[in-house]
Order: sequence, then C-alpha cells, then structure tokens
Amino acid sequence: MNFKLTIQYDGTDFHGWQIQDGLRTVQGELTAALSLLEGRDVVVHGSGRTDAGVHAEGQVASVQLQKEITPQKLRAAINGNVQSDVRVLNVEVVDDSFHARYSAREKTYLYRIVNGPVLSPFWRNFAYHEARTLNLELMRDCANVFLGEHDWTAFSAAQSDAESRVRTVTNLEVTESSDPRAASRVIEIRASADGFLRYMVRSIAGTLLAAGRGELDQSIVIKALATGDRAAAAATAPAKGLTLLMVAY
Amino acid sequence: MNFKLTIQYDGTDFHGWQIQDGLRTVQGELTAALSLLEGRDVVVHGSGRTDAGVHAEGQVASVQLQKEITPQKLRAAINGNVQSDVRVLNVEVVDDSFHARYSAREKTYLYRIVNGPVLSPFWRNFAYHEARTLNLELMRDCANVFLGEHDWTAFSAAQSDAESRVRTVTNLEVTESSDPRAASRVIEIRASADGFLRYMVRSIAGTLLAAGRGELDQSIVIKALATGDRAAAAATAPAKGLTLLMVAY
Repeated sequence: MNFKLTIQYDGTDFHGWQIQDGLRTVQGELTAALSLLEGRDVVVHGSGRTDAGVHAEGQVASVQLQKEITPQKLRAAINGNVQSDVRVLNVEVVDDSFHARYSAREKTYLYRIVNGPVLSPFWRNFAYHEARTLNLELMRDCANVFLGEHDWTAFSAAQSDAESRVRTVTNLEVTESSDPRAASRVIEIRASADGFLRYMVRSIAGTLLAAGRGELDQSIVIKALATGDRAAAAATAPAKGLTLLMVAY
Repeated sequence: MNFKLTIQYDGTDFHGWQIQDGLRTVQGELTAALSLLEGRDVVVHGSGRTDAGVHAEGQVASVQLQKEITPQKLRAAINGNVQSDVRVLNVEVVDDSFHARYSAREKTYLYRIVNGPVLSPFWRNFAYHEARTLNLELMRDCANVFLGEHDWTAFSAAQSDAESRVRTVTNLEVTESSDPRAASRVIEIRASADGFLRYMVRSIAGTLLAAGRGELDQSIVIKALATGDRAAAAATAPAKGLTLLMVAY
C-alpha cells in the first residue's frame, strides 16, 4: 500500500530533511521508524528537502509498505518511534501513482520576522529578529516584482542540480500578525510557487527585509531577475525563520 | 534607583525561578548579569517563584541599582548578558517603595492543553497533551466551584511556609483557541488570584482535566475544599503546560 504522510517538525535540532550518514535528519528518523515497522529497508520520499534549521507545519512524504496496517495505527507506530520534535499529523492511503515529490503542484512557505526591540524567547528558534521598524509598504512593492514566472538564478544557490531555474511564484504576501507571546509585531512573508529552488524563499525573504529597511527598491530586484546576478540580490535570510506550511497535490 | 523589570522566559532549560547553587535558574541569570553591570552583588526580587519547566510571558522583578542608567540601556545591558531563553521585555523606573513580591495585587496564570490525537512539535514544551476529547462544559462547571475565597490546603503542596492557605481566585476561565501550528484544538485554563500557593494552579488544572475526562465532578471538589484532604484532589498537572502571564500592581 502507498501512504501519504503529513508531517510537522521543529527543525532546530535537525540537519535538515535529507538523510545523511551520521547526522540526525527528519528523513533519517522516519526511515528508521518505518524500516523497523516493515522489517526491511524502506524509502521515504519527501515533497522536497528543507535545510538545517528550517521547520515544517505541513511537510508531505510518501512511502510504499507491504505491511497491512490502518492509517491510524501507522501514525501511532511512527510517532511512538520518533522523538517529540517530529510528528506525523495525518496518514492517508493513496493511489500507487502518488509520489510526494513528483505529484506536488504547489508549495507554500512562511517566513516569520519578530519586528521590535526584543526577540521573545518563545520565538527565538522560529523567527528572525529585526529591531528596526520595517516598512511594510516597501516590502509589498518589492514582493509584487517577484510575482509570476521568472528565472531565479540571482535568488537561489549557485550550486544546483536543477535543470531549469524558471519557477512561477503564484502568491507572495507580506502581512502583520500579532502573537501575545511575541510581545511585538510579527511580520509574515507567505510565498507559494510551483516549486522553489534551494535558498529561493530565504533569498526572497532577505531581499524583502532589505526593502523594508529602505536599503533597496524595485529597480534593483527587476535588474537582478533580468541579469541573474547574485551580487545584486540581498543576503539570504537565516534558516530558523522559515517554515514549510503546506504542499498541494 | 528602583527598577521594575517585565520578563519572559522559556522555562524548559531552567530549574525554575529561584536562585540555587550550581543550578541554572532565571533569578540566578538575572542576578549575575545585574551584579556584573553594577560592579557589586545585587538582589533581584521576583513577584514569586515559578517551578522548573514553568514558563513566563510576563514575570515581574524589581532591583535597586546605584548605577545611573536609562531603562532602555538597562534592558539592552541585561539582554546582552543572558541567554536567549530569557528576555527583559520592559524596564521602568519606579518609586522606592515598589517591591515585585510585596506590591503584587493579582497574578494570572495560563495552563495550555493540546487536545487531539497528536502533540505538535511546536507545543511539546509549552502544553500538556490530552488525546481524549475533553468536555469543556464539565470543566467549566468544576471551575465555578473553585472561584472565590477558599482554604486551598487540598490543592497545594503539603510542605509550605505560607502562614495562611486562604487565597481568593478572582477569575477561572476555560476557553478553546486555535493555533495553526497546534493542528488540533488548544484548551486554555486562565486563572487569576490575589496569590497562589505552590502547585496550586497545576492542582486546579489537574482537577479540571479530570473533570473534562468525566473522572470527577463538582461534589468531589466541594468536599476537598471543605476538608483540605489532598487525597480527594486529582493529580497535579505537569509543569510544562503552565505559564505565568502577568502580575498586576
């Protein structure tokens, strides 16, 4: 049977999603728990990698199992064999053709910024801290330039095995929310696309942060998108502020 | 000058508020940072102790300093010398008569319960997990019995240096909230009183949990309050679900 797993993890103590020898990774933990259950090595496919320190509220993975087990029991069996910083929220039986990575249509990421004088202890691992007041209008002006289909060479990792660097950003919103535990405003950058290159969301977030500080404007972003010149883009924002929210199929 | 500090901390890695030799405590961290700044030993008074694993979104402390320093600079100096799991949110200059403990009029605590099949990794250190669906009406019926002035002997630690065990609970609410990161409902027990005895909030929370499971009803609580019999009260709820929200002066 083919199973679709919806997963949350606090990425703080993981070396990212992808399995790596000798390092604690989310895929590694899930693979170990599922292989133990199945009594043989299984392969767990994620919708995509997340880097070290990046979190997930709705990562999706798929796995083929020979064992006959109900979704509820599978969820309980996995959660009983992984540590509490990773949890399977939901398990569904899906068609054999379903593959967490190749079937994905759209992904949504959230980048959180605590914008105030003090970074709350409760957000220290889940948000970037910016003490200067960010100008949301400038951030939104810049976000509008990113919308749509572009070659993202200037806004992704130099090294990449992707065949094409063209992706379509279908939504990019900058909103302000409040959390009593943050004790100052929380700015959320929500980005959806048909796919993201490595460091792409963090590069967009870093650029919007620079725009919010008044350090760059639309014209620089337009030029960087057109030329693919990484030097023109702002610094990549830190991993801890980033969360994979959901994957649509 | 006399300073009032409003403080947040993630209690997970602290052995509680109160300074103790060889153990990491919040009062210990603040005392070290302030003594360094002042160039002599200072005494930091908290509004009250919190136990190991208990959090604070609005703990209050007071400290007398000889050093001339603005509130903003004092906040920055402390935050620059403590770890990121504790933060001074606000500093005010107050009258010399102000004392964080003796001037306190009312305290408010929050006890969080994630009520669903899976405990989100993001709440694992900040909420108690209850998989069975809790009956909020039964919890509220029970909460009404606790309201008002009572002798809390049955609902506090056996060992206590308090002269009187009479306290007045001015508010006790059971509400349901939602947090997208919780992926299930979060039940919040909010309790305000003129003061709390040791383990009192956690004992109230444990009793309301038992009520929500249908394990006890109002009559047991009425009897326990009247007799002071600890055996009649339910188990104390775990520390990690508890947060000191605010202190009123």
